[in-house]
Amino acid sequence: MRQILVIGAGKSTSVLIRYLLEKAESENLLITLGDLDLEQAKRISRGHSRCNAISLNVFDKESRENAIQNAHIVISMLPASFHIEVARDCIKFKKNLVTASYVSKEMRALDSEVKQNGLVFMNEIGVDPGLDHMSAMQVIDQIRAKGGKMLMFESFTGGLVAPESDTNLWNYKFTWNPRNVVVAGQGGVAEFIQEGKYKYIPYHRLFRRTEFLHVDGYGKFEGYANRNSLDYRSIYGLEDILTLYRGTIRRVGFSRAWNMFVQLGMTDDTYELENSEHMSYRDFVNSFLPYSPTDTVELKLRHNLKIDQDDIMWDKLVELDLFNDGKKIGIPNATPARALQKILEDKWTLAEDDKDMIVMYHKFGYELEGEKKQIDSTMVHIGEDQTYTAMAKTVGLPVAIATLAILNKKITTPGVQIPITREVYEPILEELQEYGISFQEKETEYLGYNPFGEVGN
Amino acid sequence: MRQILVIGAGKSTSVLIRYLLEKAESENLLITLGDLDLEQAKRISRGHSRCNAISLNVFDKESRENAIQNAHIVISMLPASFHIEVARDCIKFKKNLVTASYVSKEMRALDSEVKQNGLVFMNEIGVDPGLDHMSAMQVIDQIRAKGGKMLMFESFTGGLVAPESDTNLWNYKFTWNPRNVVVAGQGGVAEFIQEGKYKYIPYHRLFRRTEFLHVDGYGKFEGYANRNSLDYRSIYGLEDILTLYRGTIRRVGFSRAWNMFVQLGMTDDTYELENSEHMSYRDFVNSFLPYSPTDTVELKLRHNLKIDQDDIMWDKLVELDLFNDGKKIGIPNATPARALQKILEDKWTLAEDDKDMIVMYHKFGYELEGEKKQIDSTMVHIGEDQTYTAMAKTVGLPVAIATLAILNKKITTPGVQIPITREVYEPILEELQEYGISFQEKETEYLGYNPFGEVGN
Repeated sequence: MRQILVIGAGKSTSVLIRYLLEKAESENLLITLGDLDLEQAKRISRGHSRCNAISLNVFDKESRENAIQNAHIVISMLPASFHIEVARDCIKFKKNLVTASYVSKEMRALDSEVKQNGLVFMNEIGVDPGLDHMSAMQVIDQIRAKGGKMLMFESFTGGLVAPESDTNLWNYKFTWNPRNVVVAGQGGVAEFIQEGKYKYIPYHRLFRRTEFLHVDGYGKFEGYANRNSLDYRSIYGLEDILTLYRGTIRRVGFSRAWNMFVQLGMTDDTYELENSEHMSYRDFVNSFLPYSPTDTVELKLRHNLKIDQDDIMWDKLVELDLFNDGKKIGIPNATPARALQKILEDKWTLAEDDKDMIVMYHKFGYELEGEKKQIDSTMVHIGEDQTYTAMAKTVGLPVAIATLAILNKKITTPGVQIPITREVYEPILEELQEYGISFQEKETEYLGYNPFGEVGN
Repeated sequence: MRQILVIGAGKSTSVLIRYLLEKAESENLLITLGDLDLEQAKRISRGHSRCNAISLNVFDKESRENAIQNAHIVISMLPASFHIEVARDCIKFKKNLVTASYVSKEMRALDSEVKQNGLVFMNEIGVDPGLDHMSAMQVIDQIRAKGGKMLMFESFTGGLVAPESDTNLWNYKFTWNPRNVVVAGQGGVAEFIQEGKYKYIPYHRLFRRTEFLHVDGYGKFEGYANRNSLDYRSIYGLEDILTLYRGTIRRVGFSRAWNMFVQLGMTDDTYELENSEHMSYRDFVNSFLPYSPTDTVELKLRHNLKIDQDDIMWDKLVELDLFNDGKKIGIPNATPARALQKILEDKWTLAEDDKDMIVMYHKFGYELEGEKKQIDSTMVHIGEDQTYTAMAKTVGLPVAIATLAILNKKITTPGVQIPITREVYEPILEELQEYGISFQEKETEYLGYNPFGEVGN
């Protein structure tokens, strides 16, 4: 039997394990699922005879080495910063490795050793990063194969709530790590290039510079800029491209409303609020507004943000129970971001039968035989339930498929890599279609930079 | 003769040297002025027989120790981060030390050694910090001596252009380090307390939360919050105070206009612009605005900031020649803040006969015998010319007076300190009056937090 070691029994692992167990007989697989929390590993392995749940602490050298030594291939589903010790052991014991995380500097430094040992270390093979790389490179390679020259690449991804579970005014619920949503966009300017011009958006304007996107059957979305668009020039070989923009998808109106929190200073994660534990939600709001002996927190906020009482923006705040003097933050030494997260979790946590949705949208502008053309490629995937979520599936399935492809020597090129070569993306994208994860491509006239998302004028 | 070593021949040193030379005969002083730039030291010493200009590199141990050893007292007018080696030598050779800089952690750590040696290390004895400490503590001590209890302390300082030289729409010119003006308020939230409530203002809102101030004979000003108000609770012994707010003074309308730069992202100092050297002023503006194949930079900016063409805010931008396509930034690897500084320096540099002005405004709220009262204390000082500026005088004179007071054993309490004790502030404030630097106090009814700066309703 061929042993696969899966380290980390987190949210996406359930889908990964289900896939591998479905193939366990035909592919002759034995899976070892290791986690610090043995009970969690057991829950996910469901007592399947081909899946051993073990207690595994990656910081304990002996048990880590022991587990890796016995495996034919290793999947690390740990947080990105925990991969490196696993990766070093994989070199030591000559095992291939798969992760869904961004390639860290430490990981990249292992490349020549990995190559010398003829190993495949596949990273960034989840949804974003992962599915975005594969689906984008497939179209870019096709355009190039035809002799086309890339002019524009815009790419947007969003983890959202499914339409059938979309029950609040924000059209949003937390489908992944809430903290990442609250601090999204912080830590540096958003830089990108549009028609050859470098553009910069500071954090406090990020949620007011959105683009509209239309997905057939799902309606209108909006995208705000990610920080790192320009990194994709070298990753995708788009050094001379005129427009390069990556963004995050939300339902229309989310960003304008989220901007209220940004403007007030509620998303700041760099300092701690005084007495945050005993602060009410109302106190929290008031701490960002000027003192007044008479004016209400409500009026001060409306005046501060220049919103009317019949503006939907106001209703969105009221829906969050933001002015409640009875509810407490209840967290000592909370930053504003942490306190806001608490308030949002009250309302934005998925209900038991809620489903999530992943939306991806690429725009490829190119020139072919003197003519400018555009391909728009979209993918929408809705989760089955709270275990097999769209997020877990779009992360876990590419990881699982890649693992089997490496084990079966369909992917063989050695090195620390990401899924941007045809050898990798083609079989994976093809198999993903069987699981309902597929892209719809549409050729249009070249629309170029088109913030209103309209076809034609 | 009693030797005074002055290290650093910067802007404030001219006033300091003039004061000391005026007293040189009667006080039997010999001044040594050391600077890396010997010519600059010579210019300031003006060939006076009681002043030796020397070339001095504070990082050269031998020449530094040699100079300090020969002095009776040392004044360091270097940038704050350069004091520490001088301070260590002053302990080694048992010399008193005076600086106008904030007490650094390293400087504070020397306190017990300084005390053991019976030395006085006087810091923060310029204008802000310095004159603000002295003038505030004098009133606070008087209120306490009467049995009053402090309720509120608000304190504002600004370096501005004198009314007779106020010739642009911004009512502002650079009278000190332009860089500090461009990045003012960055690096953390502005935190303060109003009527017992903690308040937080994020950087991108700082210039929209101003208070108005009225100074008799000089009209209306505005103040925006400094970052570090709460530090002054322990410094001034105001632990239980209900309102504590420190701010920076500008002419009314400056902050609202400056906010345009903040909103666009032009004051960011954390990243470098692509191709900044060859960027025109117009390119610079455009890099913060969305791409359009047709719309002008002017219209995009007005739309982005929601300003009308007949708004004075628009005229302020035009006055800076911000849309000029011919003028280049001309600085490689410039941050937005550095590029903006360049643009502003074109217009905001003092003309040869321009004068500067320092404005200080304190509000003291207190309770005495069951009654709430308020004292407002204001100081305005206008410079003589471009050498003996108000800034140089309000920094250099307190330093010089303190130095002589220490030399003459009028200030004797040892330790690393700042001028908040009566022993220190009383003689200095008294002598400063002879130089036209004096505070006007006015008792009013208790106005409390009063953002509109109006007396009465």
